Amino acid sequence: MAEDTQRRSSNRGRPGYGREDVIRTAVEAFNDVGYEAMSMNALAGRLGLTKSAIYHHISSKEQILKEATDRALDTLDAVVRSCEHSGGTAEDRLRALLRGTTLALCHEAPYVTLLLRLRGNSPVELAALDRRRQFTGYLIELVEEAQEEGAVRPDLDAHSVARLLFGMVNSLTEWYNPDGRLSPGELAQVTEELAFQGVEARGTRPEK
Amino acid sequence: MAEDTQRRSSNRGRPGYGREDVIRTAVEAFNDVGYEAMSMNALAGRLGLTKSAIYHHISSKEQILKEATDRALDTLDAVVRSCEHSGGTAEDRLRALLRGTTLALCHEAPYVTLLLRLRGNSPVELAALDRRRQFTGYLIELVEEAQEEGAVRPDLDAHSVARLLFGMVNSLTEWYNPDGRLSPGELAQVTEELAFQGVEARGTRPEK
Repeated sequence: MAEDTQRRSSNRGRPGYGREDVIRTAVEAFNDVGYEAMSMNALAGRLGLTKSAIYHHISSKEQILKEATDRALDTLDAVVRSCEHSGGTAEDRLRALLRGTTLALCHEAPYVTLLLRLRGNSPVELAALDRRRQFTGYLIELVEEAQEEGAVRPDLDAHSVARLLFGMVNSLTEWYNPDGRLSPGELAQVTEELAFQGVEARGTRPEK
Repeated sequence: MAEDTQRRSSNRGRPGYGREDVIRTAVEAFNDVGYEAMSMNALAGRLGLTKSAIYHHISSKEQILKEATDRALDTLDAVVRSCEHSGGTAEDRLRALLRGTTLALCHEAPYVTLLLRLRGNSPVELAALDRRRQFTGYLIELVEEAQEEGAVRPDLDAHSVARLLFGMVNSLTEWYNPDGRLSPGELAQVTEELAFQGVEARGTRPEK
């Protein structure tokens, strides 16, 4: 009986499924086979629901895309606002941004994964890519400000640095595993240290 | 007349198109709209060729995928072999690998982009992902070796570091622009320095 109850509660195909579950399962399906390739029919099959049961929750495939990418972007915006409100130096804010985005990607992995794979094939996608670009623009400005402050090497191209740093953090959507070696908090520390100090062992730095 | 000639030579839809052109255009189309979503009909339309003209060059959509991902993987393998043959320390080989993969990604961007977006939906994709995993395994071993050598900080998790470093380099497929601010060689230098030293300005290091 206990096994039966457990099986039922983990069976995502049962009716009674909430709106958020439909969206999350759809996002995972988009990430598995591609947004363009995933039909509402296939999604219904995956959920064990009829198409009309899905349309009870959402009006179109594009609406799912919009809500999912908004969720990812709203989370990233919240990280930016939190960095700005901290009122620290550019270095403090840059460090906080790297830690905060790492945590956000770990916690909202499916939504950010979908966002990062958009190609701009529709107005919804173009709007999401535009918001993403603003976010990259914020990081570039932060790197430049930290360079002016003297905290970041002035000889590195701020645009390339910003994109490489986001590339590092964004790669988490490809390999972060909730059951993996490191927790989101530990990964956030590795990301920040790698970005600021690099991997090089410092023979000359004072030990302990 | 000159304009007409130029227009004709840049019109990829004309017959007389070589096999490599067909594959490259197909790869760009896969990257634009997704491999699963791109049909041979749509590809024929994009090339301005009939489907039978395309089948003169290649036997299936999957064959294009196989050749394109093999090309990306063979290029990356050549970078690994070159690092190994250099016979340097683990640090030397790690630096060479970061520079070499950056150059490879810039020069073979469409093919590596396709490789990095595979989801494992077919035997060809699974085989490519397996070769990609071996490549990541090589980087992890190299980081561990460099840690034993004392060149890389021993306190960082080698697996996470390897994946973050590849994430940084792989992001070039998303933003590298042949007409952009930095050349592939300059980007290779930024990647290597960012990985080893990080962005932090070193107030205490000797100037010049």
